[in-house]
Amino acid sequence: MIVALAGGVGGAKLIYGLAACTTPENLTCIVNTADDLEICGLYVSPDLDTIMYTLAGLANPSTGWGIREDTFNALSMLRTYGQETWFALGDRDIATHLLRTQMLRTGKSLTEATQFLAQSLHVQATLLPMSDQRVATLVQTDDGWLDFQDYFVRRRGQDEVRGIRFQGIDEARLSDQAAQALERARLIVLCPSNPIVSIGPILALAGVRGMLKRSAARKVAVSPIIGGQAIRGPAARMLKGLGLEVSAYGVAQLYADFLTGFVLDEVDSAQEGRIRSLELEVLVTDTVMRDDMDRISLARKILRWSG
Amino acid sequence: MIVALAGGVGGAKLIYGLAACTTPENLTCIVNTADDLEICGLYVSPDLDTIMYTLAGLANPSTGWGIREDTFNALSMLRTYGQETWFALGDRDIATHLLRTQMLRTGKSLTEATQFLAQSLHVQATLLPMSDQRVATLVQTDDGWLDFQDYFVRRRGQDEVRGIRFQGIDEARLSDQAAQALERARLIVLCPSNPIVSIGPILALAGVRGMLKRSAARKVAVSPIIGGQAIRGPAARMLKGLGLEVSAYGVAQLYADFLTGFVLDEVDSAQEGRIRSLELEVLVTDTVMRDDMDRISLARKILRWSG
Repeated sequence: MIVALAGGVGGAKLIYGLAACTTPENLTCIVNTADDLEICGLYVSPDLDTIMYTLAGLANPSTGWGIREDTFNALSMLRTYGQETWFALGDRDIATHLLRTQMLRTGKSLTEATQFLAQSLHVQATLLPMSDQRVATLVQTDDGWLDFQDYFVRRRGQDEVRGIRFQGIDEARLSDQAAQALERARLIVLCPSNPIVSIGPILALAGVRGMLKRSAARKVAVSPIIGGQAIRGPAARMLKGLGLEVSAYGVAQLYADFLTGFVLDEVDSAQEGRIRSLELEVLVTDTVMRDDMDRISLARKILRWSG
Repeated sequence: MIVALAGGVGGAKLIYGLAACTTPENLTCIVNTADDLEICGLYVSPDLDTIMYTLAGLANPSTGWGIREDTFNALSMLRTYGQETWFALGDRDIATHLLRTQMLRTGKSLTEATQFLAQSLHVQATLLPMSDQRVATLVQTDDGWLDFQDYFVRRRGQDEVRGIRFQGIDEARLSDQAAQALERARLIVLCPSNPIVSIGPILALAGVRGMLKRSAARKVAVSPIIGGQAIRGPAARMLKGLGLEVSAYGVAQLYADFLTGFVLDEVDSAQEGRIRSLELEVLVTDTVMRDDMDRISLARKILRWSG
């Protein structure tokens, strides 16, 4: 059993590779939901959607998120009605949000809604939201605390990050299904997702770090920071704003209390010694996933290395 | 002040003409909401939408309902998710339903939601749902009682109609805004809408027939039955199924207790005498509205005739 912890686009790429290299029934993804938001009454779960669309072969290859060849006519009409439309809701995408919202309103859990949606799209791997309770990432900027999507999408991640808070994290708990998957895991992969706001909320749920420490599984992380830059998104700026080292080593430090191995890009091979000093095994390889073959190749190397 | 009572497509056509011939601020439309339905958690109000889109110049000219050049990608994705998709939700149209649903969920009335939507689309006439309480038309067929849209859209109005019931009609009441409009009206026009399921629910609200009887306004109806046929929709089949005469005269009878005048198509001029015997003034003219000019022409004739 393989369990991947993931956020959005970066996580989806590696999960796509893992699903292609293993029996997908043996792959469970525990996905960040602290970026979830409500738009026009629709419950939107961007990370779950990105991973689901990627595994279903529906993802928009040029953005990584959304559905390929989707249209934006509902959004355009919402603009006509004077609504803010900075969050891109595709027309096909709206069907996902409509059904999820309806299931939540009629008493289903986010776990159940996700299972229904993913199975309808013939996704064979198991997708699990980290929690069935609402957690909301807030970003402290010079203009105050902002909702994550306000910071990330509306303001394009341009603010200096002074702090991060996960609202509701003390009341939320890892779902039973996610806890069972972690207990049964032989390999746990922390995807190259933002360590602060994608992997961070999962690790911040009560008991998760303890569970990971106690787990006898191999526990490996792939650095989302390559050559001091994030491949995508605000990870570098966030690490810097929080006073953390913007490097693969900086990421390894965040996970070092429970990790057994770390996957380092070749351009960062000079950091191998420092990371080994954290008592981690290190795989140095090309980790940039430009296309599907890269995804599968990286996944295969990680699986071989992890035995 | 002119008040129009209306259902969907037929009503929208005459209202379009009335709005073009009068100061639209002096025109108030009281619209049937007993066809409203919930689809995927969206509150859809087909008659209000049809009239709103028509007055906003957005209506699809080939169907009469929906928005011109709309796409159906959300619907297609709902089908991928295994949902029934017999009710055509356009992508642009969904924006209307999303906002209406959200306003209702946050405690706004249907009247308030309708006002917001119509004003955002620069509709100058006043659109009012007949009631802020839910009324649902049920149609009795040989397969039992069906929701109106199930009968009309999914089963294409093919069933024999054995009975009609307006669920919730005893608890619902004419909205205050609609009551005030009726009180101030100088002319009340019953549009060529289905007399049973479009005009019927409005007249079935407590006090409405009494208010119409007492009103000193001119009260005229346009026959939706021409040459024994409905221009569109199941009116003829319904009248027949309920044992009523399928003719302009049959329609006039339904309103004769409060009406002052009746607009009859030229092809039905032979019925003029019978309709006059109901103590109604009669205007015989071409009532088929093929295009915008027909709509305006008919509206102008009605307004002149009504003084």
